[in-house]
Amino acid sequence: MEIRKIAGGVTAPKGFSAASCAAGIKYQGRPDMAMIRSSVPCAVAGTFTSNLVKAAPVRWDMQIVKEKQVAQAVVVNAGIANAATGATGMELCRKTAEFTGEALHIPADSVLLGSTGVIGPNLPLDRITAGVAAMAETLSDSPEAGTAASRAIMTTDTVNKEFAAEFELPAADGNGTVTVRVGGMSKGSGMIHPNMCTMLGYLTTDCAVDPSLLQELLSEVVPDTFNMISVDGDTSTNDTLLLLANGLAGNRPVTEKGPGYDLLKEAVFGICRDLAVRMAGDGEGATRLMEMRVTHADTKEHARILARSVIASSLVKAMVFGRDANCGRILCALGYAGAPFDPDTVDVYLLGDKDTVCFCKAGCVLPFDEEKALELLSGKEVRFSCDLHMGAEEAVAWGCDLTYDYVKINGDYRS
Amino acid sequence: MEIRKIAGGVTAPKGFSAASCAAGIKYQGRPDMAMIRSSVPCAVAGTFTSNLVKAAPVRWDMQIVKEKQVAQAVVVNAGIANAATGATGMELCRKTAEFTGEALHIPADSVLLGSTGVIGPNLPLDRITAGVAAMAETLSDSPEAGTAASRAIMTTDTVNKEFAAEFELPAADGNGTVTVRVGGMSKGSGMIHPNMCTMLGYLTTDCAVDPSLLQELLSEVVPDTFNMISVDGDTSTNDTLLLLANGLAGNRPVTEKGPGYDLLKEAVFGICRDLAVRMAGDGEGATRLMEMRVTHADTKEHARILARSVIASSLVKAMVFGRDANCGRILCALGYAGAPFDPDTVDVYLLGDKDTVCFCKAGCVLPFDEEKALELLSGKEVRFSCDLHMGAEEAVAWGCDLTYDYVKINGDYRS
Repeated sequence: MEIRKIAGGVTAPKGFSAASCAAGIKYQGRPDMAMIRSSVPCAVAGTFTSNLVKAAPVRWDMQIVKEKQVAQAVVVNAGIANAATGATGMELCRKTAEFTGEALHIPADSVLLGSTGVIGPNLPLDRITAGVAAMAETLSDSPEAGTAASRAIMTTDTVNKEFAAEFELPAADGNGTVTVRVGGMSKGSGMIHPNMCTMLGYLTTDCAVDPSLLQELLSEVVPDTFNMISVDGDTSTNDTLLLLANGLAGNRPVTEKGPGYDLLKEAVFGICRDLAVRMAGDGEGATRLMEMRVTHADTKEHARILARSVIASSLVKAMVFGRDANCGRILCALGYAGAPFDPDTVDVYLLGDKDTVCFCKAGCVLPFDEEKALELLSGKEVRFSCDLHMGAEEAVAWGCDLTYDYVKINGDYRS
Repeated sequence: MEIRKIAGGVTAPKGFSAASCAAGIKYQGRPDMAMIRSSVPCAVAGTFTSNLVKAAPVRWDMQIVKEKQVAQAVVVNAGIANAATGATGMELCRKTAEFTGEALHIPADSVLLGSTGVIGPNLPLDRITAGVAAMAETLSDSPEAGTAASRAIMTTDTVNKEFAAEFELPAADGNGTVTVRVGGMSKGSGMIHPNMCTMLGYLTTDCAVDPSLLQELLSEVVPDTFNMISVDGDTSTNDTLLLLANGLAGNRPVTEKGPGYDLLKEAVFGICRDLAVRMAGDGEGATRLMEMRVTHADTKEHARILARSVIASSLVKAMVFGRDANCGRILCALGYAGAPFDPDTVDVYLLGDKDTVCFCKAGCVLPFDEEKALELLSGKEVRFSCDLHMGAEEAVAWGCDLTYDYVKINGDYRS
């Protein structure tokens, strides 16, 4: 039994439909709202920003995920974050959920909400409700509807992000196996340094699975996927990742850890990793995806801390932009990461598909093939690794280069 | 009794002379080595980088500061950091100190060393020793010699940094008071996110003071001066701050905490703060100095953490470059800082000399005077503050904007 990647996104699993519309919330002349709906109630799991300043929709979703663990729809807008909006922002969430509930004939507290964009302004309720009404009429389970939804939630993203996969599980009726699917979409380009989850990510599955297991699964997947990417070190006020499971695949329900749980987790992990890497490579202004692999660390968490430190270093990011093999900056970023290692035993490499350049052996920077290094630094993906010679753990982090365009985009974001 | 700012730098206190030369270590046609010498042995205190990857001269200095607490000269080079150079780098330190000791007729282990520049390459010993020989012949206690030394240690700095101050202390012979002086110079523009100290900073004083008190004083001053600035979040491998006290002012020695200790500390604090602010404003590519003041925090350390988080945020830095009053980014950076506060009670301000713009009250972003905000964001110094309404502690951090030139400088640093 294995995981197969398939086309599509959130509408790939049975029973999920999606819609989008141009509500004119801030952007004009482009879709800026999306909706996902399941035909039946779903078990729901979620992870949220660790930022103390939490946007109103984050607070709204956290309550549903923690207290009810059941939901049936998601409404998302781009352009305005509904953060730092106090009681007004929470009231707007309540009204949006009530309006959506009426339109979809489901309880208001089974409507999850997401917002992304500028912090501070209030959302225009009339445009939000007009958008919800329009989307409720146009829900579709087609792949195109899922793709359109993934486009509608983009802000400074340059490409949409959606992935799907399928695998087999024993059927509920005992007759052979059934196909279970997982789909997902996410957005995020700036203010990306997830801590507990990413900017906005929505995962769907038709797998029948126990709600408490679902949360455990998601919490296990996030530390090595969305939490391992960084664009600019800024952890957003709105980070939200939700996983909805409606059980319509007809599999024997996953109620304990075992082969079924492992397969579902592997599928969710693969989609989360692909979405996360796509987000890192589409960082604001980025021209290159950067990967940092830390091997032979003493603990998994130390490997993660060290890999993330390199990915987040402004100097490493600028050096990748300039294709300058100034490898001492990688050593420097490892050194201030806050995780222990012996600086006199670390090796650092620049990895290619066929060739590898060794920058540093046993803590000393070595002469290396500058021409080969320049060639490897000129690709669309630049991959570094380091060997700590300490233990058996490893971790991978993803980021992007720091460019003139990042500065340009963020020096003039509101206008 | 009060502190008076005076002209000059490291040669302002009695008995200190300086020299510089163009040794051609990496830069050509400009001074790249500096020397400071005291006519008599000094008590010495120091703080060093917390980066696990410590440059060879950092390791050399740490041993002298910790084990001997006595030194008489400092030799510094710009261009090559002598970091990640293993045993070869340490051997080079030993040889440089031995050569300097012979040239100045002092013990080799009273020679402190400092290097700044590219990580990885080995220093050319012949050019270093030729530079030391030349400088030993040209030492001078003139203000010009101090200024020239502060210029010689610059890398991507655009202005040199030196300050001096004086105050009165009771004379050692009981007859009235004597004038005590403190001087300092520092360099640093990129890879600036000091943790325990700054890039390279050298302080001199003719105050007679107990060596153990000297280290305590320096350790008390650093957390609110050099540790409160950030240019790019990268803590260097070479950060070093040294304070040499030769006792030649003729004051009654400061041997315990009290009025004398307090005056010396205030003078050292003022010079460290001025050097730190100058470094922040001269960050690589910077067009503006940025200041963040956190008031009414519950603890001093929380205030520091919150202020530093705002200063280090790429999004806040880019917004200051673009003069965009996207104040939600300040709230966001406070929220992920890792120090506790109530997001529903925080106020955020943009401060001018006469006017103040309130961005955010009780956690909600407010409408504000955009024209006035643009005016205040257009100055050479941009000052933010926030009021946490929690306690009585406050802290100030300094940084700079994130510009195209930062990316340009660091995308192509080695060549």
